[in-house]
Amino acid sequence: MLTGIRVTIIGGDARQLEVIRRLSELDATVQMIGFDNWECRLSGVRKAELTPAAVAASDAILLPAVGTDDAGRIESVFSASSLVFTEELAASLSADVQIFTGMAKPYLRDLCKRHSLALTELFDRDDVAILNSIPTAEGAVMIAVQNTDFTIHGSRSLVLGFGRTGFTMARVLQGLGARVAVMVRKPEHFARASEMGFHAFYPDSLAEEAMSADLVFNTVPSLVLTAKVIAKLPAHAFVLDLASKPGGTDFRYAEKRGIKAMLAPGLPGIVAPKTAGKIIGETLSQLLSQTLDNGRSPT
Amino acid sequence: MLTGIRVTIIGGDARQLEVIRRLSELDATVQMIGFDNWECRLSGVRKAELTPAAVAASDAILLPAVGTDDAGRIESVFSASSLVFTEELAASLSADVQIFTGMAKPYLRDLCKRHSLALTELFDRDDVAILNSIPTAEGAVMIAVQNTDFTIHGSRSLVLGFGRTGFTMARVLQGLGARVAVMVRKPEHFARASEMGFHAFYPDSLAEEAMSADLVFNTVPSLVLTAKVIAKLPAHAFVLDLASKPGGTDFRYAEKRGIKAMLAPGLPGIVAPKTAGKIIGETLSQLLSQTLDNGRSPT
Repeated sequence: MLTGIRVTIIGGDARQLEVIRRLSELDATVQMIGFDNWECRLSGVRKAELTPAAVAASDAILLPAVGTDDAGRIESVFSASSLVFTEELAASLSADVQIFTGMAKPYLRDLCKRHSLALTELFDRDDVAILNSIPTAEGAVMIAVQNTDFTIHGSRSLVLGFGRTGFTMARVLQGLGARVAVMVRKPEHFARASEMGFHAFYPDSLAEEAMSADLVFNTVPSLVLTAKVIAKLPAHAFVLDLASKPGGTDFRYAEKRGIKAMLAPGLPGIVAPKTAGKIIGETLSQLLSQTLDNGRSPT
Repeated sequence: MLTGIRVTIIGGDARQLEVIRRLSELDATVQMIGFDNWECRLSGVRKAELTPAAVAASDAILLPAVGTDDAGRIESVFSASSLVFTEELAASLSADVQIFTGMAKPYLRDLCKRHSLALTELFDRDDVAILNSIPTAEGAVMIAVQNTDFTIHGSRSLVLGFGRTGFTMARVLQGLGARVAVMVRKPEHFARASEMGFHAFYPDSLAEEAMSADLVFNTVPSLVLTAKVIAKLPAHAFVLDLASKPGGTDFRYAEKRGIKAMLAPGLPGIVAPKTAGKIIGETLSQLLSQTLDNGRSPT
């Protein structure tokens, strides 16, 4: 339980509603800022304005998936008013407040550093990234089916990277009956991918592997799908880049060559906001209850 | 090889292009009727008009997925002109012509019967139906991801029917990490579904099983999702009916109750026309080459 813990949720999208539900279930005291258009009837939840006085007494603050933009603006789909995480706001917070977001831009990181505020980027955590890889892979399947005239089943699918997302993506494609090849860097990943029935290969073979690829799913956040690799792809191949912006694909060259290539970051919030919200809510609750267990008494 | 076999393709969509390619590869003589807007450079393929003289010498005629409508009209996405399978046309055909379509309406069946013409409904064949179940299941996944805010993974998914499509659908959902329950009628299907790790149940338990369903995929072509069953579904449940029109769902009641329910027949031609065309092309070629093997010399 999170009885006595005061959480302030500032901005966000449908995912936040799941987080708020979970926090309310666990008896936290929740204030929502930037939810003007959402009618909430949960116990222990109230609306507030974004002022230093309102946030000062928070034990935790949850910002949206992308915490703030480069100017400190916090996005909210439930409000038309502008929300900004200002210096004044940061200065008003208690020293032991915990700030949570999906991923932080330099603005937010710098602000927290200057004011010695603890910042947790949830999407960096392995557990969150692994759970988020599930809606990512389902969204990737949806996009691949929409954008091809052949089935995933029986296709030769390349998955670039065998990390938290690549692992899930490869398994999902295998489950659909694709012939899956996985690009790895580490020998232990080569071994694991082989054990799981994938054709594993190292980056130096990518151009060669590309020659027979029907589908390519990239998860590597650096330029791997270079012009040299794209030049080898069959004309009907479809490239879906799941890495964070700007992805790992030379999109300019893909377009020039007429290869269909798309960047699709942030799929969990788009294709399964409820599941994605549950992942955030569950992780946040666990982190807050650990804080409680570690002797910090609710104030 | 199909050297000397004369195939007339009348109307259709992107699937027919794959069929034509396959027949041309196998050296058949192909004439296309209703493909005005498609530029074809394949050897042995020419365009023709729909006249008794043009079709009279055909060994085989391929009509679209839905052969004709109730008035004998043949659909073609590549032509604006009207194509009708008339009595006059039927009367002009040779006695040993074979007519192929996906599925026939009474008009076509009656016409073929009156003129003693051999009619094969390809989608009725087990091999074709099983292969078509692959793009159907992938299309169903696409639609489910589009229409829900939670993941298929971890969801409780009901598959109604364990025939050619239900079997594939259940396996695909299992591959994505859903908890799959399958409604069966036959004890041997109950046993097989259990062996495969599904929760099997008989139709008399459907209302009870519906209470905890997140996703329902129907493949039974008769009313199974009655108002009584739909009344038990959770409010967030999503129903996708894959059975032939009119499906097996009381859509009127689903709408009244606010349960999202969709009918999605004919998915292979929509989500994977290339694969669906290959399935038809491969099956048609095999059937025609069997005809050749059975001693009927190409004329």
